[in-house]
Amino acid sequence: MILEMATLDVKVDMQDEFEAAFSQAQSIISAMQGYVSHELKSCVEVPNRYLLLVNWETLEDHTEGFRGSVEYLRWRELLHHFYDPFPVVEHYQAVSLPDP
Amino acid sequence: MILEMATLDVKVDMQDEFEAAFSQAQSIISAMQGYVSHELKSCVEVPNRYLLLVNWETLEDHTEGFRGSVEYLRWRELLHHFYDPFPVVEHYQAVSLPDP
Repeated sequence: MILEMATLDVKVDMQDEFEAAFSQAQSIISAMQGYVSHELKSCVEVPNRYLLLVNWETLEDHTEGFRGSVEYLRWRELLHHFYDPFPVVEHYQAVSLPDP
Repeated sequence: MILEMATLDVKVDMQDEFEAAFSQAQSIISAMQGYVSHELKSCVEVPNRYLLLVNWETLEDHTEGFRGSVEYLRWRELLHHFYDPFPVVEHYQAVSLPDP
């Protein structure tokens, strides 16, 4: 499983509009091939900052499947104009820790 | 519930040592008052980068309880020398999204 992580800085005074748009947009990712789960949380320390965490079965389910889909065009249209700066998206994978 | 999030950049060639130290250190947070769960994951795109996510019952369980504890001294001793730069820690909370 792969965790997509993005810190989202939303333009000043657009939080309510962003949350309404995200409420619509989350049904788009939730229906994609390889989608496992997602969470949107808001930052305690930085106003207008959110954290988006999405679990995907594989990296390619996000980077190729979702980003190459027709549904992504709608996702982008709903959400991308809220961000400033445009977010950096990273992917994280499980670590096998040694025995302590 | 509050999510603590930190992106951890570990010094070059110290990943194995860091993972061994984290394997010890995770028993420290896991035993703290207000600790709920944690995950350590490694970044696909950036070598030596990790993501630490810790769920706490309240913000103060982390910022006052843990950081003000004797146990934190041991946590710091085990882990802080691996980081460059020293990580920024943020806290995130649930968002109540409107109906779509």
